[in-house]
Amino acid sequence: MIIIKNVIVKKYGGSSLSTVKRIQSVAKQIKESYSSNLNIVIVVSAMGSETNRLINLVKSISQQPAPRELDMLLSTGEQKSIALLTVALNAIGIKAKSFAGHQSKVLTNNRHNNARILEINTEKILNAIEQGFVCVVAGFQGITSIGEITTLGRGGSDTTAVALAAALDAEICEIYTDVDGVYTMDPNNYSKAKKINKITYNEMLELSILGAQVIHPRAVEIAAKFNIPLIIKSSFISTVGTIIHKEENKMENFTIKGITVDNDTTYFSISKLPKTQNLSYQLINEVNKRDISIDMVVQNFSPKDFYDLSFTVSKKYSSQVKAVCELFNKENSFTQLYHSTGFSKISVVGLGINNHPEVLGAFLKCLADFDINIECLTTSQMKISCLIDQRFSKKAVESLHNTLFPTLLIQKNL
Amino acid sequence: MIIIKNVIVKKYGGSSLSTVKRIQSVAKQIKESYSSNLNIVIVVSAMGSETNRLINLVKSISQQPAPRELDMLLSTGEQKSIALLTVALNAIGIKAKSFAGHQSKVLTNNRHNNARILEINTEKILNAIEQGFVCVVAGFQGITSIGEITTLGRGGSDTTAVALAAALDAEICEIYTDVDGVYTMDPNNYSKAKKINKITYNEMLELSILGAQVIHPRAVEIAAKFNIPLIIKSSFISTVGTIIHKEENKMENFTIKGITVDNDTTYFSISKLPKTQNLSYQLINEVNKRDISIDMVVQNFSPKDFYDLSFTVSKKYSSQVKAVCELFNKENSFTQLYHSTGFSKISVVGLGINNHPEVLGAFLKCLADFDINIECLTTSQMKISCLIDQRFSKKAVESLHNTLFPTLLIQKNL
Repeated sequence: MIIIKNVIVKKYGGSSLSTVKRIQSVAKQIKESYSSNLNIVIVVSAMGSETNRLINLVKSISQQPAPRELDMLLSTGEQKSIALLTVALNAIGIKAKSFAGHQSKVLTNNRHNNARILEINTEKILNAIEQGFVCVVAGFQGITSIGEITTLGRGGSDTTAVALAAALDAEICEIYTDVDGVYTMDPNNYSKAKKINKITYNEMLELSILGAQVIHPRAVEIAAKFNIPLIIKSSFISTVGTIIHKEENKMENFTIKGITVDNDTTYFSISKLPKTQNLSYQLINEVNKRDISIDMVVQNFSPKDFYDLSFTVSKKYSSQVKAVCELFNKENSFTQLYHSTGFSKISVVGLGINNHPEVLGAFLKCLADFDINIECLTTSQMKISCLIDQRFSKKAVESLHNTLFPTLLIQKNL
Repeated sequence: MIIIKNVIVKKYGGSSLSTVKRIQSVAKQIKESYSSNLNIVIVVSAMGSETNRLINLVKSISQQPAPRELDMLLSTGEQKSIALLTVALNAIGIKAKSFAGHQSKVLTNNRHNNARILEINTEKILNAIEQGFVCVVAGFQGITSIGEITTLGRGGSDTTAVALAAALDAEICEIYTDVDGVYTMDPNNYSKAKKINKITYNEMLELSILGAQVIHPRAVEIAAKFNIPLIIKSSFISTVGTIIHKEENKMENFTIKGITVDNDTTYFSISKLPKTQNLSYQLINEVNKRDISIDMVVQNFSPKDFYDLSFTVSKKYSSQVKAVCELFNKENSFTQLYHSTGFSKISVVGLGINNHPEVLGAFLKCLADFDINIECLTTSQMKISCLIDQRFSKKAVESLHNTLFPTLLIQKNL
């Protein structure tokens, strides 16, 4: 078995590779980071909007292409990228070698279009590293045990990068993208958003709505499991980026990391459930059976014999869930059903938030000052989430940010 | 071992697959030929000019991309085609499955960009046929014993189709292209060209200049070796096409099959070579060492102690060969070197041509009638070739065609 030290995995997304010029500039960047005692492994996505182009092409033939054939088609996108980037690296004197999914031996299960990585046989890549090659690996794609091509679904290339970093026992995994890090709010919608310099895996997972634009939660989960430090960086400008790392045992260093808004939410509430029956479980189970994930679940405290159950799901499932709830309501005629799509879920994230009750106080005061009604509220070790009327969401986020991230605090603690 | 009977291999070239519409029309054609007792295997090229697009893309990064990376890139072209055609087949109710080179197990040597097929492990394809799938196989690409992606170079997809037909013991291999068969002259340049209905493998090989536009000689060689009947057909119009088959032992059925012109020829002549030394071999060997193929070689009969040696090479090698000849001429100061690029090679092809001296007579008379001087002449069992001044080539071909293919003769014999 070959043991290689000082491996660094760098992942470049589609926007970083959208043109020949950008591919060449990525190659230059890699060359600049190159040194004899560092072993660089690159993971790439398909060029720019190539994946969407391929999807549009196949959809013009069939709205429901066979998942296996879709993978056959889509996997060509990353294969093009690895070849072009490798040629660009060679052209500036860097010894490099590309690896398609069936060569990098990213072994997955056989769930086409949404496969899960089972293991990576790194022998070929380790051999190439030993021979002095920069390895350029196709992200997003894998191979089943019988040689079928699979793709990993959303966040696939991030997942390949982190899984490969874990398999190679890499020092770090750098995710290069078109933004320069994770922000305290969505920087596209809120000009006062600040970049976060350091954040823990769990905080990042809670901030997944902010984070998903730069790294997929799946990838963060794997990084956390194998303790691979992640850096989110811009591939266009040279800045520090955001480091995602494991928790340190210094709870006193508490800071709020970010504020997220989710407008893609439908709210269901069933009232007058009798305490004596196991009805919550029955209802939730019916929803789960349809492979629909439930987000906030709130069962309020009640001194009476009845209670209310509320939960949210992604808007796209609302008609399916409505049908489930209506049937449930019919079978249990004593209950009352209420649902609405007009809400936003606002969350404030920071490790140890519940050890600092002043945060919840400030949170509630902030919304009260603007007469914003809270429909539903949940808290956890590192998050406060509430549902409010969607019309007030922008105002709420801005004022929460102003209150919870005073400029001085940010400079001191982030 | 699975034994499958009634296999038919159909190969569709890039022009037949250049748009989604054309892919759908190929799918329809396949459906029409579908029947329960026929096992259809499809081999496809990349869509339209996809391969050229990919080459231009990579050349904008490097004029000399690593051959391995070029294969990694180019092989995506056929992979796209197989996925899209399979989806198009599924969409009209045909059960189909695509196979990339590493799945169809087209095992090649490791000469990237110009690999040779060593064997095809048909197990996966036979399994799929047994399960009732139409198999859609990527042409042009293969895999080495260590899993490297290779491409087969010129005529690659034709070669894949014929090699697969041989490996599957197919009844026939149909090559669908943008012309409806092989013609007696190049139909793009000569309006009087006639379609050939039947032609033997060897005649087809001699007609390779005409044939290369519709099928590559490499593919014909494999077909001949394994006795797989080939049909060249249009994928746009429904006509009989040209059948390429093995020789039948009826020499009396002699017909002239076609006339070819090669303007891509440089002519070298070295005169006053002493008979006693092995100089022809030395010179030809020097050229061969540079991997340059020599076409016509003529050493004329001479009663004296000296002789002249002439040969032709493809124009692109003329400066290289000129350098070799000049060095040779310097080392052997008694010789005289002459070369020129102003010639065309005209060939008349037909099995048993040398048993019919009247053909050579008619050939010579035809050129003499127009005062066309013959610079050099060679004949073989099935071919007469001559070099003439390029300015007269069109006139020569037309008058040879008029003389050797009188309309009645064509209708009777072809």
